[in-house]
Amino acid sequence: MIRQAKVDIHRISHICIRVRDLEKARHFYVDLLGFVETERDGDHLYLRGVEEAQHHSLVLKRGDAPGTCYIAFRVARPEELEKAINVFNEYGLRYRKFSERGVKDAVIFEDPEGMPILLYFDMEQVGDLRLKFHMYRGLPPVRLAHVNFVVNDLEREAKFYMDAFGFMETEYFLDENGQKFVTWLTRKGDSHEVAIAKGRRGPAMHHFTFYVHDVRDVIRAADIMASAGLWDSIERGPGRHGATQGFYIYLRDLDGNRLEFFTGDYLILDPDKWKPIGWTHEQARYRADFWGRATPQSWYEAFPVEDIMTGELKSRE
Amino acid sequence: MIRQAKVDIHRISHICIRVRDLEKARHFYVDLLGFVETERDGDHLYLRGVEEAQHHSLVLKRGDAPGTCYIAFRVARPEELEKAINVFNEYGLRYRKFSERGVKDAVIFEDPEGMPILLYFDMEQVGDLRLKFHMYRGLPPVRLAHVNFVVNDLEREAKFYMDAFGFMETEYFLDENGQKFVTWLTRKGDSHEVAIAKGRRGPAMHHFTFYVHDVRDVIRAADIMASAGLWDSIERGPGRHGATQGFYIYLRDLDGNRLEFFTGDYLILDPDKWKPIGWTHEQARYRADFWGRATPQSWYEAFPVEDIMTGELKSRE
Amino acid sequence: MIRQAKVDIHRISHICIRVRDLEKARHFYVDLLGFVETERDGDHLYLRGVEEAQHHSLVLKRGDAPGTCYIAFRVARPEELEKAINVFNEYGLRYRKFSERGVKDAVIFEDPEGMPILLYFDMEQVGDLRLKFHMYRGLPPVRLAHVNFVVNDLEREAKFYMDAFGFMETEYFLDENGQKFVTWLTRKGDSHEVAIAKGRRGPAMHHFTFYVHDVRDVIRAADIMASAGLWDSIERGPGRHGATQGFYIYLRDLDGNRLEFFTGDYLILDPDKWKPIGWTHEQARYRADFWGRATPQSWYEAFPVEDIMTGELKSRE
Amino acid sequence: MIRQAKVDIHRISHICIRVRDLEKARHFYVDLLGFVETERDGDHLYLRGVEEAQHHSLVLKRGDAPGTCYIAFRVARPEELEKAINVFNEYGLRYRKFSERGVKDAVIFEDPEGMPILLYFDMEQVGDLRLKFHMYRGLPPVRLAHVNFVVNDLEREAKFYMDAFGFMETEYFLDENGQKFVTWLTRKGDSHEVAIAKGRRGPAMHHFTFYVHDVRDVIRAADIMASAGLWDSIERGPGRHGATQGFYIYLRDLDGNRLEFFTGDYLILDPDKWKPIGWTHEQARYRADFWGRATPQSWYEAFPVEDIMTGELKSRE
Repeated sequence: MIRQAKVDIHRISHICIRVRDLEKARHFYVDLLGFVETERDGDHLYLRGVEEAQHHSLVLKRGDAPGTCYIAFRVARPEELEKAINVFNEYGLRYRKFSERGVKDAVIFEDPEGMPILLYFDMEQVGDLRLKFHMYRGLPPVRLAHVNFVVNDLEREAKFYMDAFGFMETEYFLDENGQKFVTWLTRKGDSHEVAIAKGRRGPAMHHFTFYVHDVRDVIRAADIMASAGLWDSIERGPGRHGATQGFYIYLRDLDGNRLEFFTGDYLILDPDKWKPIGWTHEQARYRADFWGRATPQSWYEAFPVEDIMTGELKSRE
Repeated sequence: MIRQAKVDIHRISHICIRVRDLEKARHFYVDLLGFVETERDGDHLYLRGVEEAQHHSLVLKRGDAPGTCYIAFRVARPEELEKAINVFNEYGLRYRKFSERGVKDAVIFEDPEGMPILLYFDMEQVGDLRLKFHMYRGLPPVRLAHVNFVVNDLEREAKFYMDAFGFMETEYFLDENGQKFVTWLTRKGDSHEVAIAKGRRGPAMHHFTFYVHDVRDVIRAADIMASAGLWDSIERGPGRHGATQGFYIYLRDLDGNRLEFFTGDYLILDPDKWKPIGWTHEQARYRADFWGRATPQSWYEAFPVEDIMTGELKSRE
Repeated sequence: MIRQAKVDIHRISHICIRVRDLEKARHFYVDLLGFVETERDGDHLYLRGVEEAQHHSLVLKRGDAPGTCYIAFRVARPEELEKAINVFNEYGLRYRKFSERGVKDAVIFEDPEGMPILLYFDMEQVGDLRLKFHMYRGLPPVRLAHVNFVVNDLEREAKFYMDAFGFMETEYFLDENGQKFVTWLTRKGDSHEVAIAKGRRGPAMHHFTFYVHDVRDVIRAADIMASAGLWDSIERGPGRHGATQGFYIYLRDLDGNRLEFFTGDYLILDPDKWKPIGWTHEQARYRADFWGRATPQSWYEAFPVEDIMTGELKSRE
Repeated sequence: MIRQAKVDIHRISHICIRVRDLEKARHFYVDLLGFVETERDGDHLYLRGVEEAQHHSLVLKRGDAPGTCYIAFRVARPEELEKAINVFNEYGLRYRKFSERGVKDAVIFEDPEGMPILLYFDMEQVGDLRLKFHMYRGLPPVRLAHVNFVVNDLEREAKFYMDAFGFMETEYFLDENGQKFVTWLTRKGDSHEVAIAKGRRGPAMHHFTFYVHDVRDVIRAADIMASAGLWDSIERGPGRHGATQGFYIYLRDLDGNRLEFFTGDYLILDPDKWKPIGWTHEQARYRADFWGRATPQSWYEAFPVEDIMTGELKSRE
């Protein structure tokens, strides 16, 4: 019951973000939080969750400022990359061939709203750590769950992800004028793989999220950050989302990049029966935080993304 | 990346079992365990989990002995039912039109090994109880996760589910002679929706399983059974499965039917990269119960299934 | 190793608070949160936690405004009540004989800072609900853990509880001038049974706290309040305290009275080795909320207490 | 409300057991389970739980066979050690002066049934790890909760602990003839600090138990043992005790010594109101394991204890 699409996207796969000091970032992500280190080359650290067999789901790239290099999706078949080229041309999108450690053949493009997106079919498999409980550290993170980013024209962007890539909408927020300003989209059928918000700051990254198995693992993230003296890294939560039902915490890494740990969301059992859940302005109190707590101002900050051609962070004004 | 199939099965949907006393069964399933009651007619009680919007995922039917009426799958499109008829004819399987409360058009058939299976496309939706925490009782059960049954010819049965319905194998057990005797199959990509064991007792039902959100909900099932004086209902567990990684408990209802509560299994992120996990006889100690504990003899008992034409339990000898 | 005391206080026992509508309060405390109802007379509802065998640990008394009637301690022997009279006379404290449902012989007095305190030795026992898991509702609350109140002269009040009643200090907060303004005291050796804050509003009640067995029960309190539409009842948390280490949530009942659910604090293994933990102004960020989150302004509100002679709420100005 | 006693015992403090290989034992206790290592000298490893400030609560001593050197209690005041000498003489018990790393002045004696018991008042304090969540490993163990041992004459032994040391009984088991054969005793008021069973093997050690904060930590013990390949170390559980209500798991260390992790027991709120809970033979099914599961035969094995004069394991026949 997968929706028809111009390019058959299989799922969200990984994300590459920028950090200033790889060694310090390694301490934060691996020693404190429990990400699994696959390997390291000069300017990159390749990490994954304990139930991911692929080479990496999180790449830390050395850079002089925080930001996002790209978000990556896996396509369902090799030939989908060819179809993707057609789509890029059809939509007039910039793109180029790309490769990274573990992924020989990829294509990176700029989506209609300027987000840098990587598509690939084949990544090296290194094996997961399922059932290796004595090797778990930190929470531990289980697998990449979703990403959230900001664009100027939400309607155009969402339409692209639905028409070209086959995503379906699961939930959305309306503002006081009844205009949609956040949408949650899924391809593989959990509560979402991509959330997109409307904002003048776009294109910009908001956060990426790893699934954990238990609410106590979410709480442990807060306890660990605090006991390590990293109070500035606890930005919001732990709490319960109204949209998606997920139990969450938002952290900031040592460079300011925002990540979320998350559990307890639902599955879309029947996509065709699902009516996207619209949360109105009257429900603003509990749609983002189900318990009715205010969102800290800092949480509205978003992060620059790289230009796919130059690798420089795009300036925003 | 859904596998091609003669009939596009969307997912496991529900199960119908037989109980002798509907009122006592209601107390067990609804009052103690927290299933949601949708409605009741003369001889049936229609139940669902708190995150299921469909009319029912568990039907209790009055009957003079425990057993299973049928297992039900939803197909991906209405026309798949037509394709199913072709498959039944191709394989020489008995079938007939069927309907039940909430499902007008269904077809019930006997699979190659004699299991009664219902296929349908459209079921009445009554709404889920997501986020209605103050209404939760018991554990509560979240959604039907999988079923497990027994057949004489495992190879033939598994081939049917893979070829005709598009299931993929995620794990399997080998016996001391290197022969496969249990297989785990999934269509939608979690650890499994169907497990099939080889046994002379087949065709027979082994158990059905509801997902819960937390290991403490699994433990609560044991605590509730014991404090209600239903020690005979706690058959096996709580424990951790090696195969599927799930944290589990097996209960027997008041008529002896076996049900499981389960959480913490994995997702098949990339079906094409997945190599079915084969557990050898040398790993027998921890493949079924990861902690190495013996399985009680009673757990090997299986339950008769109804003849799809007569509604009588098939006799087994 | 119990400290010597003029009156041998055994432990914190119960609290009586005022609510406007007993029926609505019953819904909040019993139906939603899972307190056990012992019985009801015209103007009172007597409640207890699931592991308390005594007649009540929480009395809801009908009243035209929220507030606290009294806090109650059990003394270690009947003759301690006689010693208490001597102490009241020594300190010049007002007192009178008192009785309540389940407690024939008690004495109520006004402590040096004006808090209404009840002492008794013997309360009717009605039995606990330990191991009766199938009867649990809501969280459930387990037992009264501690109370927190506000007085003008903290030094005098704390000295009274230590000298006269044998409490020991476990933790304290210093303000920016190095002056103590909150103190945590225990008699029986957990993290605290009484916390006292300095404030011009005193004598006034701040909150009472019930222990629960698990962080998920604390989280469930928030989920239940929110799903029942009672967002105003979620005042602060869930969170982790620095002082006491407890995992907490503060609720407001339908009349505004503040209650806390709490788990995960420590035991004072060796009172004589314990050096009270002093939290300085420099540690203000994480001493109250270990995760460094701000305390909402409403949390600083305190509640009037009754005059022990008239039963009227004392006016504060 | 502490019971009067000839010697005012403050609480259970620590235990010393024998292991063959200190390095392997360190891996088991520290690396896998998360005990905190205080220090090591030639033949001893000194460990504690994360919320214990004392030098050690578990001593591993190099020895050629598993067994228990002694169980240690802290007395409430220095002069209680003098009173203890009187008691030893009164009861005709063997004793001698003793010291260990961190404890200069102790006395070790053989109780009426031959168990080696150490009493002390003053141990070096090294600080606890409360709130240092980023340093936690394994479960982690929190604090020593209780010990369980076997004696020939249960009545005499229990009477000694109650009369001489002031313990009270909280629960007991009766055999098919109505004779008591296990008793649970507490001094400080939790469910128990000492459990004593009747058996011809006595004097012998059965197990020692560390408290953990959460049922998931108990489950993690099983998961970690299994994933480290130590299935033989998982002897019984996880499960729920009827007696004490505790959620438990019993492990065997690499030398065969038995340890338990445990959470969720109750407090004795009012010792004078407490009527010891007697479990009859008719309740045998659920008094030991509340869920009604059989106890594995190996669990009945007990371990030799050292002679307090020679340090040799006493032979038993």
